[in-house]
Amino acid sequence: MWVYKTSIDWTEGKKGEANCDGKPGLEVATPPEFGGPEDIWTPEDLLTSAVESCIMASSLFFLDRGKVSFRSYKSKAAGHLEKGPIGLVFSRIAVEVTLELEDPSQADAAHKAVVQAEKTCPLSNSLSCPVELSINVR
Amino acid sequence: MWVYKTSIDWTEGKKGEANCDGKPGLEVATPPEFGGPEDIWTPEDLLTSAVESCIMASSLFFLDRGKVSFRSYKSKAAGHLEKGPIGLVFSRIAVEVTLELEDPSQADAAHKAVVQAEKTCPLSNSLSCPVELSINVR
Repeated sequence: MWVYKTSIDWTEGKKGEANCDGKPGLEVATPPEFGGPEDIWTPEDLLTSAVESCIMASSLFFLDRGKVSFRSYKSKAAGHLEKGPIGLVFSRIAVEVTLELEDPSQADAAHKAVVQAEKTCPLSNSLSCPVELSINVR
Repeated sequence: MWVYKTSIDWTEGKKGEANCDGKPGLEVATPPEFGGPEDIWTPEDLLTSAVESCIMASSLFFLDRGKVSFRSYKSKAAGHLEKGPIGLVFSRIAVEVTLELEDPSQADAAHKAVVQAEKTCPLSNSLSCPVELSINVR
């Protein structure tokens, strides 16, 4: 078992500073649509980015294991928040991965690695909503 | 419905830069226990902090609605990752909130506001694992 520890100190208004031992502090706030500022990471942004970065971390593992060489890995993610029977919930998180390969003959292996990454990503597996993955390999 | 958009560019090794339009960039990486560096936010840290910051944002809303005045709001969180039947999953996220009030007679109202915050927090409600809340009011 692994334990991930974080802390938050409220600063003012709808803002606080999030911390994680030995890592840079991060300002967090209520989203603008609920009265917070425009330019600060929100809980909803963090969840979306957490899932997206988990897919990157798992993809790097499976690409390495499959000996797939790549020039670049980029992704875009969109977390959809909707009203449900128990209040606001995420209904889905879409993640689009774009991989530029060194060798086009590895396209199938690259695709397989990213699919496997999403399947085993601990964050995907800890959500009650689906993660919708799309993959572009160049 | 609201949509939260983020992006990630892999940089090198097990690291990437996470972005959210108009907000500061954030370096992210695979956790050290899976071969990543020590000093960079991981997907697991981000999920834990996302839940914790959602409880802060919701608490600020309910404290304001209940006209509860406070001097400080701090929290600590611990996300527990364990092996389950489908692989690694979060088994629980514990969040401990400490509130210092202006007026001790508002202790019950403060407690109630934070309990209500966790219940309506969209992130708590989007997880398949429980969020365990504890509250200290001073």
